[in-house]
Amino acid sequence: MAAEMAQQPDVLRALAARRDELAAAVATTVPEDLAGVVVVARGSSDFAAPYGRYIIEVACRRPVVQAAPSLHTLYGAATDYRGYIAVAVSQSGRTPEIVTVLGRMKSAGARTVAITNAPDSPLAEVADTTIDLHAGAESAVPATKTFSASLFAFAVIARSLGDVPWDEEDLDNVGEQAQAVLDDDGAAQKVATELHYAEGLISVGRGYLFPVALEAALKLKETTSMLADGYSAADLRHGPVAVVERDFPVLAFSAPGPAEKDMDDLIALLRDEHRARVFQARPADGVDLPLPEGMPEALVAIPAAVRAQQVAYHLSIRKGLDPDRPPGLSKVTATT
Amino acid sequence: MAAEMAQQPDVLRALAARRDELAAAVATTVPEDLAGVVVVARGSSDFAAPYGRYIIEVACRRPVVQAAPSLHTLYGAATDYRGYIAVAVSQSGRTPEIVTVLGRMKSAGARTVAITNAPDSPLAEVADTTIDLHAGAESAVPATKTFSASLFAFAVIARSLGDVPWDEEDLDNVGEQAQAVLDDDGAAQKVATELHYAEGLISVGRGYLFPVALEAALKLKETTSMLADGYSAADLRHGPVAVVERDFPVLAFSAPGPAEKDMDDLIALLRDEHRARVFQARPADGVDLPLPEGMPEALVAIPAAVRAQQVAYHLSIRKGLDPDRPPGLSKVTATT
Repeated sequence: MAAEMAQQPDVLRALAARRDELAAAVATTVPEDLAGVVVVARGSSDFAAPYGRYIIEVACRRPVVQAAPSLHTLYGAATDYRGYIAVAVSQSGRTPEIVTVLGRMKSAGARTVAITNAPDSPLAEVADTTIDLHAGAESAVPATKTFSASLFAFAVIARSLGDVPWDEEDLDNVGEQAQAVLDDDGAAQKVATELHYAEGLISVGRGYLFPVALEAALKLKETTSMLADGYSAADLRHGPVAVVERDFPVLAFSAPGPAEKDMDDLIALLRDEHRARVFQARPADGVDLPLPEGMPEALVAIPAAVRAQQVAYHLSIRKGLDPDRPPGLSKVTATT
Repeated sequence: MAAEMAQQPDVLRALAARRDELAAAVATTVPEDLAGVVVVARGSSDFAAPYGRYIIEVACRRPVVQAAPSLHTLYGAATDYRGYIAVAVSQSGRTPEIVTVLGRMKSAGARTVAITNAPDSPLAEVADTTIDLHAGAESAVPATKTFSASLFAFAVIARSLGDVPWDEEDLDNVGEQAQAVLDDDGAAQKVATELHYAEGLISVGRGYLFPVALEAALKLKETTSMLADGYSAADLRHGPVAVVERDFPVLAFSAPGPAEKDMDDLIALLRDEHRARVFQARPADGVDLPLPEGMPEALVAIPAAVRAQQVAYHLSIRKGLDPDRPPGLSKVTATT
């Protein structure tokens, strides 16, 4: 896991270098009268999907759906996808339900895009266009480099569909900013030390950083078996905040931008009223988990995901576990 | 909470009696060339939403989106909703972000439907058509009767948009079946006794019963502060299953139908490999939480939601808590 985490800056730089070629390939799949976009994924990829959903909808200005695979694999829904682009994400390209669902959407009229680390996979075969992550083999069960690379791939897709909330050169800097997080390993080690005896944890974000909160919870569950649960700041307030008692650990992801005030208000509520132990991941000095400063909010998600991986990795090691091979999990999960 | 739970059979029977009138009102909002449907909700309503999403997509045969409110309230996404029906769910009709988002979707071309318990609310004012749940005042913080009524309202909407996987007379029986669950209170009490010392719990379902698993986890969190987390059977396998260790409690919702085999396989995995304590809620004798037999799978969700409420209620009482007023929560949550 550590070795694959360390490869992220190179994988991200390589994607940035290929972005024009990838965007051109995606552009060929856009129907004349776009009705919407649908994203299909499971597992870690399913938490890259809401990120894609946000930035693609902002760019293409039509609604973006996260597919419910069982509608197709179990219930035989006869959904008509004419006018839609379907984007499926699977690092292995071999999760049977994802391949089946993308194939059905294509037969029902969708133009199809695969984001995968396996350009010779059944998923790539079904897709009209493939974004090859070129991340190299990922052997550790917890996805790391393919997750951050999938976020980057969604950024490339968004850019080919309309206006995006970042400048061209910002994409060139993402690899370096992931490196900056990796180089500052001590912060995550310190947080892992504090979390050693915690039974549970809540991670929270809003907007572009909400998917990172989901992924952080998944990484912690996978590598440490801790009861970690990810929320948007708004959903947390609507009920689940009841579990936050004195000293309960909360991992809060935020960045300068439209969602920052809501996160600041929530952090104050959690600290002042619930007496929670809030660990902040944000672009600032003096916080538990500093993120690189000066990036557009929509791209902070990528180094923030690296921060989340670091915390999960170090907590797993401290607990004497093997983060690469969590008990009861395998790399390709054959859901149908 | 107990008093409001007890009113559910009457609320459901009344909705069944008004279904033609409600379906006719919804039918007036259908655009000529339907591009898709979008559902907007937060909190408990946000777990009624995936249920609506499933049955509406099966019926209308166009993709159904669950909206990301922050795209509109924070990021000013200029999404074009021409060709879409937008359905917003809010029992109070006063959650500011839900009202704002439905208003924006309407300005951007959507036809709009409100599902609410407050027909004079700001939400109903924004909507082209309102489905008044007529559930009577709901004062307990955990939503119960408005949740089951919202599921029923989605069934009525689905029916007005296409073919549905149940017969007309089945809707007449839902109230009675909710009553049968309420009358058999001992099963939930027994499960609550076993859960008394559990730190955490996972609830799981697939397909039409997946939203019930989400809602069960939310009710347990709200009323007992337990770390309860809801999953689809497929998502649970993709990582989170790592938290299920020996004797870990799992609440599994299933019913005869296309999703049953997947749930049976998962239950066997959890019992045999993870040595979990699986509590089954299904239409069968001899299970921990029996559900009414002979209902179409898509409608079992409603009595199953009542079962989930019962478990949360009894666990809260056993723990000496007040299920009506969980600490740190209020009935209307003013997220933006």
